[in-house]
Amino acid sequence: MSLEQMWSQLRGIGRDPQTGGYHRYAWNDADMELREWFAAQAADRGLDLAEDGNGNQFAWWGDPAAGNAVLLGSHLDSVPDGGAYDGPLGVVSSFAAVDELRAQGVEPARPIVVANFADEEGARFGIACAGSRLLTGTLAPDHARGLRDRDGQTLDEALRSRGRDPERLGADHELLGRMGTFVELHVEQGRSLVDSDDAVGVASAIWPHGRYRFDFAGEANHAGATRMEDRRDPMLTYAMTVLAANKQARLTGARATFGRVEVHPNGTNAIASKVTGWLDARAADGETLDGLVERVTAQATDRAHRDDTTVAMTPESTSAVVAFDRALRDRLARLLGDAPVLPTGAGHDAGVLSTYGIPTAMLFVRNPTGVSHSPAEHAEWDDCVAGVRALTSVVADLVRP
Amino acid sequence: MSLEQMWSQLRGIGRDPQTGGYHRYAWNDADMELREWFAAQAADRGLDLAEDGNGNQFAWWGDPAAGNAVLLGSHLDSVPDGGAYDGPLGVVSSFAAVDELRAQGVEPARPIVVANFADEEGARFGIACAGSRLLTGTLAPDHARGLRDRDGQTLDEALRSRGRDPERLGADHELLGRMGTFVELHVEQGRSLVDSDDAVGVASAIWPHGRYRFDFAGEANHAGATRMEDRRDPMLTYAMTVLAANKQARLTGARATFGRVEVHPNGTNAIASKVTGWLDARAADGETLDGLVERVTAQATDRAHRDDTTVAMTPESTSAVVAFDRALRDRLARLLGDAPVLPTGAGHDAGVLSTYGIPTAMLFVRNPTGVSHSPAEHAEWDDCVAGVRALTSVVADLVRP
Repeated sequence: MSLEQMWSQLRGIGRDPQTGGYHRYAWNDADMELREWFAAQAADRGLDLAEDGNGNQFAWWGDPAAGNAVLLGSHLDSVPDGGAYDGPLGVVSSFAAVDELRAQGVEPARPIVVANFADEEGARFGIACAGSRLLTGTLAPDHARGLRDRDGQTLDEALRSRGRDPERLGADHELLGRMGTFVELHVEQGRSLVDSDDAVGVASAIWPHGRYRFDFAGEANHAGATRMEDRRDPMLTYAMTVLAANKQARLTGARATFGRVEVHPNGTNAIASKVTGWLDARAADGETLDGLVERVTAQATDRAHRDDTTVAMTPESTSAVVAFDRALRDRLARLLGDAPVLPTGAGHDAGVLSTYGIPTAMLFVRNPTGVSHSPAEHAEWDDCVAGVRALTSVVADLVRP
Repeated sequence: MSLEQMWSQLRGIGRDPQTGGYHRYAWNDADMELREWFAAQAADRGLDLAEDGNGNQFAWWGDPAAGNAVLLGSHLDSVPDGGAYDGPLGVVSSFAAVDELRAQGVEPARPIVVANFADEEGARFGIACAGSRLLTGTLAPDHARGLRDRDGQTLDEALRSRGRDPERLGADHELLGRMGTFVELHVEQGRSLVDSDDAVGVASAIWPHGRYRFDFAGEANHAGATRMEDRRDPMLTYAMTVLAANKQARLTGARATFGRVEVHPNGTNAIASKVTGWLDARAADGETLDGLVERVTAQATDRAHRDDTTVAMTPESTSAVVAFDRALRDRLARLLGDAPVLPTGAGHDAGVLSTYGIPTAMLFVRNPTGVSHSPAEHAEWDDCVAGVRALTSVVADLVRP
């Protein structure tokens, strides 16, 4: 099946016709359709399909038991109203690379396996890279089973409703032991390749990052009848914290975002009793990141005193810096004609598997606007083709006898 | 049926057992149950039940055609997670006053009618006092039918699903022409009566107020990969606007609240593309209110330029100052032993009917904490009884031959 056909099949799945954005969340209807699509791609190519206990799908070319496999792929889920490329570009390009290798008559000396990692974005249950974290044992199955989506459904219930056994969640070191190298291709989520005028780049590192929940609490009251001086309005504390996070990130060359907020009772004529905001923060090193989060929390706490509200900060997930395998990275950059090497602020399953100890690399495909996690996310067709070509030559090099 | 019994029947309807707050919104299940409760109260007392085309319920003691009726009552719906007293205290006290008048052997020279006004809080369809505004013709039926709740259902659809005919929405001048006086009893939503040490007070005026929707727009993007300087983050513009509104209200002795916000896509690792916030603003006079809203809008617009976002302000509803009938107000205050006379920042159906031209008064019952629109809203039992006593003596005076 051609690159065009694969994209054409994916286009409509989980897409909001109004915004053009995707709503592909772990185990929702769109995700189930994407899983079937992945299985059909495997079958179409005579690859052996396997799903681990965490919902990660694998399509094997060659005998898994042979070991030292070259792992490709990425994920098919999206953020709320996300773009078409973040995730799917890596999966589609991996299948296309398999096709290309076969067209070239390559007979791999190592197994090749294409993955679709489950719940990379964490859009539904709040933990990014949940599939690879469970697989590597860095997310505890008990904790994962109890995670709830916004409607109150647990991952345990979601898995059962899709015919999966939540008791099978957990690390699979035998499976991981068969992986020799992981190469994840991904659309760039920034504009470095636009600046350097290259279609494809190689990742150096993933910035450390974290998600921190800020719970602001005050007192619900009537918006019209309550004097300003009698209020305990947590919306004010939240608003100041949003501005503080932005300022601290600018001062330290880091990144900080409040992109999600929930308000209770969220009525026009009621002062809020509770505001919960989620801070996404990233920086080039852990010290800068920790300092940023500390300063934002301190400023939020100061303001809470002024507003007679309270604030509690809870880290929901944190990831240390990931420096990808240097030898592999240099080999790939050379192979691709001295492709640029660049860091990224975005987390990936590649980061999780790299931290686990599997030599890992990432290829980035140029994003003309830098926009990602949005319906406006885009990659030019020629750059997508260049990505497939780059991935093919990298894999051909890795599987040479 | 005693006061105790009425409260005991109402207590569980639409109540969230976790917060203790109420979720009684126009035409939802709780609202339907409250409507049945109202009908049962009418039947229990041999009052004639009528529902107008807008869903307002009326329980008549005496012949409507006689005219010059004394209208009592309030509303039974609530804000999200609202308190037990805002609305129901007026309805319950009105039925109790009818019982008390009968126990005293009063034979009214004018009809007495107890009302349950539909959708006073506007919690579901966004327009406060929708029932009385439709009745008086200040809310156009066409506009009302198209109003949507948060799930996208229109008022038209909601009415049909409850067996009501949306074509019957609209002004009813014949009905209004039968009303000679309106007295609405309500829990105070502030602490003036605590300060003056009175159980019951009389309203002087309702402050002008309005609801203004602020639509902030920017560009969704990846929270980790997008440099701070490349962002167009509307959450920042929103946050600054929240703080500006608070400051302007304090400077002018007015009230301004952002209690409701909606974010798109509302994902932790995505910069928001859209943030919509609703400003509720009130002031002692229209000039102060207009100046406040102008300054907040100007500051929001300035900040939008800095953030490379946009902001659009839309007034969703505005109400001019309501000065209640002075003669009626003075008569009630004297009758209640020189009860304190106080203004309120909260809107009421009494304001709508007063503006229509019906001589209208309000009685407030002391609220020990001043908290309203919250599960913590409270009134002491003795004060509720004092409210019934006051209402009874006011009505007895009004219906004397």
